[in-house]
Amino acid sequence: MNSLAKKDMIIIDGLELCNWDRNLLLELHKGEVTCIHACVGLWENARETLGKIGRWYRFFEENADLIIPVRTGEDILKAKAEGKVGVVLGTQNASPIDDDIALIEVFNNLGLKIMQLTYNNQNLIGSSCYEKTDTGLSRFGKNVVAEMNRVGMLIDLSHCGDQTTLDAIEASRRPVSITHANPDWIYPSRRNKSREVLHALKDNRGMLGLCVYPFLINGAATTMTEFCELVARSVDFMGVEQVALGTDLTLNLDDEFLKWMRMGRWTFEMDYGAGSKDNPSWPAWPAWFQGPADFPNIADGLLAHGFSKQDVYAVMGGNWLNFFTESFKSEKELKVCV
Amino acid sequence: MNSLAKKDMIIIDGLELCNWDRNLLLELHKGEVTCIHACVGLWENARETLGKIGRWYRFFEENADLIIPVRTGEDILKAKAEGKVGVVLGTQNASPIDDDIALIEVFNNLGLKIMQLTYNNQNLIGSSCYEKTDTGLSRFGKNVVAEMNRVGMLIDLSHCGDQTTLDAIEASRRPVSITHANPDWIYPSRRNKSREVLHALKDNRGMLGLCVYPFLINGAATTMTEFCELVARSVDFMGVEQVALGTDLTLNLDDEFLKWMRMGRWTFEMDYGAGSKDNPSWPAWPAWFQGPADFPNIADGLLAHGFSKQDVYAVMGGNWLNFFTESFKSEKELKVCV
Repeated sequence: MNSLAKKDMIIIDGLELCNWDRNLLLELHKGEVTCIHACVGLWENARETLGKIGRWYRFFEENADLIIPVRTGEDILKAKAEGKVGVVLGTQNASPIDDDIALIEVFNNLGLKIMQLTYNNQNLIGSSCYEKTDTGLSRFGKNVVAEMNRVGMLIDLSHCGDQTTLDAIEASRRPVSITHANPDWIYPSRRNKSREVLHALKDNRGMLGLCVYPFLINGAATTMTEFCELVARSVDFMGVEQVALGTDLTLNLDDEFLKWMRMGRWTFEMDYGAGSKDNPSWPAWPAWFQGPADFPNIADGLLAHGFSKQDVYAVMGGNWLNFFTESFKSEKELKVCV
Repeated sequence: MNSLAKKDMIIIDGLELCNWDRNLLLELHKGEVTCIHACVGLWENARETLGKIGRWYRFFEENADLIIPVRTGEDILKAKAEGKVGVVLGTQNASPIDDDIALIEVFNNLGLKIMQLTYNNQNLIGSSCYEKTDTGLSRFGKNVVAEMNRVGMLIDLSHCGDQTTLDAIEASRRPVSITHANPDWIYPSRRNKSREVLHALKDNRGMLGLCVYPFLINGAATTMTEFCELVARSVDFMGVEQVALGTDLTLNLDDEFLKWMRMGRWTFEMDYGAGSKDNPSWPAWPAWFQGPADFPNIADGLLAHGFSKQDVYAVMGGNWLNFFTESFKSEKELKVCV
């Protein structure tokens, strides 16, 4: 009687980093996922990102019966209506723009609608949560924030250091996102976020995507109840309209990619990122979330935990839908709407 | 009584290669030009072209009162209605796609709607009119033609060698263009086109943009009457629906750029292209066409020469309008229209 109407539920994942193939797309369909933010790049420069986007276009063509590209909120609704999965392209680094402010509009026009300001290292724009000192947003970084605001490319701060995050929130004329991280007072990790940062995000009307990446929770041992408790406490802090999911799902990836993810071209030495020497490989995921087909488990879990149906819909995707719809508009389009 | 209704005339230039600034845009307005194909690159690779397109986006922003970007026929009509100049971005080389077939859709999505298969040298795709031997379209070249057909990026063959041109016309499922060249039996030049090539273009329903570039006519001494005679004889050969203008206007460019245009990075020795040792610098233009403000001179000249008003409208821009409108559609869009 109190069950979720899955046909009406919109499920949106704020970040997935997978080696996509048709089988994985079918898993998304099993999970009745409406839309994902797919990570296109980590360390890739402008030219490399261009090639990756080209391959994505081809992938869209070859799997047009299963997925559609998403550049607007309407595209997400279209995906839902057609029973397809919408895919928002984004990168976890500002490396695609090299040192050229003009490339933000260029990549935005190619459908790259989300860009994280830094990945795990200091870059031209700011600093990461793993650097010893975070000097905050650079001069170029301030221009990047303003230009992303202008064209409607969503700012993602998930891997940024605290000062860079606070500076970016202050500089941004528009709401920003932390697409995949958790409150660090619930799960301590350099990658998770402090009260100060999340308070600033809340005031900015920004969105927090809660993360299932095992290193950012309690590993594979994390129970569904514990995850629901994470959601509940985050909602208490942020408000139910500003909490969503960003699983950081990593599937179909080998150790070679793990090295690329962690070491890029910046070191010859092993760097473990959110992992550790004792836990050097890809992490095992909780039993209740082994892949995209398991999204309904989370929805059912939240309902069983006591969330209202309305709040479950909001956290599972309704919030991202509203947030993406606004965030992907250029400032010119926003003005026309007013 | 037989004067042209300039308010109703659409003027479209099939190629201009200028160092654009606001003054030049005002000259286009003086000439009541509706749309130009602006050359974005000659030798630039993918990364360099990306940067150039980024700068063009900024130029569009900064001069939004004078110009708008054109990706469709509707955009051209919008430019006319708003009293602005529409700008189609294109390149005179396939260098933007490097060796990657997927970059055609990428650059098409960025608004690069016209691409010449080769500039003055042999490349991965085919050969130029200046090479000793033209081996025709390469294996990659055939794929490039098919992919340009698919996405709706117009194939330009102006600088290609005869065999490459004939091969491309045969391979193409859609009409192609020679945006800026003249019949070589009227003005002999390696850059101008033979009867065989233009006959193939005619059969392909392709478009020929007649060129005012002094080295491709009789220099600055060419009279308006002679140019009108060129138009008349070309129309006799091609039919009035397949002849238009592609002035190849080169303004505001210095000797440094001339060296880049002719020598790129492929030689240390001077290469004169369509020029010669005796005439090594930028050519002087005929008195009746010193710049974009002089387009009405050509229209008036054609009318005085005996062309009907309808045919003047066709050659001045009506033909490009129809041709661009169809050519810029993807094959998917064409099918929807049928």
